[in-house]
Amino acid sequence: MLAKRRVRPHGKHAMSAEVVSLPRKRPTLDPMLALTAPGMNAVNSVILDRMQSEIPLIPRLAGHLISGGGKRLRPMLTLAGAELVGYSGARHHKLAAAVEFIHTATLLHDDVVDGSDLRRGKAAANIIFGNPATVLVGDFLFSRAFELMTEDGSLKVLKILSGASAIIAEGEVDQLTAQRQIETSEERYLHIIGAKTAALFAAASRISAVVAECDEHQEQALDDYGRNLGVAFQLVDDAIDYDSDAAEMGKTRGDDFREGKMTMPVILAYARGDDAERKFWQSAISGRLISDDDLAQAIRLIEKHDAVADTRERARHFAQRAVDALSIFPDGKARAAMAEAAHFAVMRGY
Amino acid sequence: MLAKRRVRPHGKHAMSAEVVSLPRKRPTLDPMLALTAPGMNAVNSVILDRMQSEIPLIPRLAGHLISGGGKRLRPMLTLAGAELVGYSGARHHKLAAAVEFIHTATLLHDDVVDGSDLRRGKAAANIIFGNPATVLVGDFLFSRAFELMTEDGSLKVLKILSGASAIIAEGEVDQLTAQRQIETSEERYLHIIGAKTAALFAAASRISAVVAECDEHQEQALDDYGRNLGVAFQLVDDAIDYDSDAAEMGKTRGDDFREGKMTMPVILAYARGDDAERKFWQSAISGRLISDDDLAQAIRLIEKHDAVADTRERARHFAQRAVDALSIFPDGKARAAMAEAAHFAVMRGY
Repeated sequence: MLAKRRVRPHGKHAMSAEVVSLPRKRPTLDPMLALTAPGMNAVNSVILDRMQSEIPLIPRLAGHLISGGGKRLRPMLTLAGAELVGYSGARHHKLAAAVEFIHTATLLHDDVVDGSDLRRGKAAANIIFGNPATVLVGDFLFSRAFELMTEDGSLKVLKILSGASAIIAEGEVDQLTAQRQIETSEERYLHIIGAKTAALFAAASRISAVVAECDEHQEQALDDYGRNLGVAFQLVDDAIDYDSDAAEMGKTRGDDFREGKMTMPVILAYARGDDAERKFWQSAISGRLISDDDLAQAIRLIEKHDAVADTRERARHFAQRAVDALSIFPDGKARAAMAEAAHFAVMRGY
Repeated sequence: MLAKRRVRPHGKHAMSAEVVSLPRKRPTLDPMLALTAPGMNAVNSVILDRMQSEIPLIPRLAGHLISGGGKRLRPMLTLAGAELVGYSGARHHKLAAAVEFIHTATLLHDDVVDGSDLRRGKAAANIIFGNPATVLVGDFLFSRAFELMTEDGSLKVLKILSGASAIIAEGEVDQLTAQRQIETSEERYLHIIGAKTAALFAAASRISAVVAECDEHQEQALDDYGRNLGVAFQLVDDAIDYDSDAAEMGKTRGDDFREGKMTMPVILAYARGDDAERKFWQSAISGRLISDDDLAQAIRLIEKHDAVADTRERARHFAQRAVDALSIFPDGKARAAMAEAAHFAVMRGY
């Protein structure tokens, strides 16, 4: 299927596609889902239990997103990591729920920040419930996350997740600062997504090693796995927003374009474009060209320079680093599932 | 000065004003400020140090509010409590800074939630920096608060402040739910302000006893002091918004009215009003009467029923409970300063 869909001729910059070896069969998330299914039931119970409140609007609003079809990838990383290192306790269930609460809180706040209409194919929370309630329920979930961590009682976990939370916020503000700035470099962009997305992936993955009392070496390896996976995941997310081939992902195609968000496909197309194309990008990203025709033109330029394909290549690079970070752990079901999940991340929407 | 300004005749409901004994001279915050001045220097250093970030917009936005003339009453409670119980360490400086960060985060989010133009007499953060950055910098400060607590390492403090944070968010959502609901009862209103305001006052005060390793009895007394003070403080805040006598407090007079926020003066005026007056309140709070003339009419009705004076009476009741909660501690400079601060809270803007 991959070969069949990848029929468009490679541009001069897409050479690297031939170098990286792809897994033979199309990777899926299934082994990861199977590995973490029993634990995810426990995590989901904690999530449902702890999103309750005597204020009915809170579980209603939180539930809109929490039951809204997210894959709960981040708590899954905590559970998979625990399997990988042979942890047999139950402490990580609460902590994985805390990770999902932090993630949900940031999504709710993102909905307000981006003003996007859709989230996972449904109306965004702020469209239904308004900005005020959406901001406040985000705060509530964030507080609940810290309550859960405090109940667990590991100061090390608290340090990792409070640190990650601050870095996420910094990354989001940094992204806001870079918005409508066509001169944003690839390095700066990688720095931004390393903070706004990968920091929580890294933390979610790392804390499994903390509860299992692994050594620093293993902790760091799980951090590396999560962080690289997070970067790959975000790159693919950003690619999908301009990918004319991509299956529908529940977000409105072209959102990033209309918001003047600087993402990898634009950075590549701009870097590789001629003077006229660069003029187009300058106008578009500054917000002067946002019609459907302009989006179509953006997608044409991105295709011309293989910028979606090469964003996926960049993602493949980070996914491979994620996989290789696991090499210090014994081979087995958990490691294979986590490796396949990384390859799957790159193929999403393809 | 008090007697001179309080010339308007008491209405039939203002009788209780004669019952509560007022302190002889006008109370001030000065003893509290003197008591906590050295500690506040340390707290301010932590605040300035920990609001920094490599993303320049973060300290700029946070600094707008943090250097914006707030009294830092909440961290002051932590410091005063520490003086009261004879704590001689320095742990509470970081924790008091964490309290102020939580408070600042909620103020930033409130600015977005309320859409108010002014905060402490200056343009609100969201007016200058926009909603997105304001939400995200709030998240950043909130995360930093938890980093500070984690560095301190007391799980008990973490439990108190994460719990308080969740309750604050619940209180804010509850207030949102009660907005434009003229039938909101005094009981429900007290429940709301107990959560959205008093919970942090209580926590700020309580944690001083935790770092000083006081017994549960003293911890609870400091919690009671902070909680009652917080209720009094909010009642007075709400009174000022309708008080034609009040000195300017930096918030736009009538904000609560125009937002259809149910506060004590409205609850009292509505409860005591005749049918025609109740009709007015129903229309006003539902948002159909928001002109300056409508506000003037609201203030007339509130004066007619002594609703501002009696809101202050309610505040005086809670302030007195705060003072009496301190009775288990030895008399001295700290206790006297804290008691006077409670009386001062009631007189603000008068």
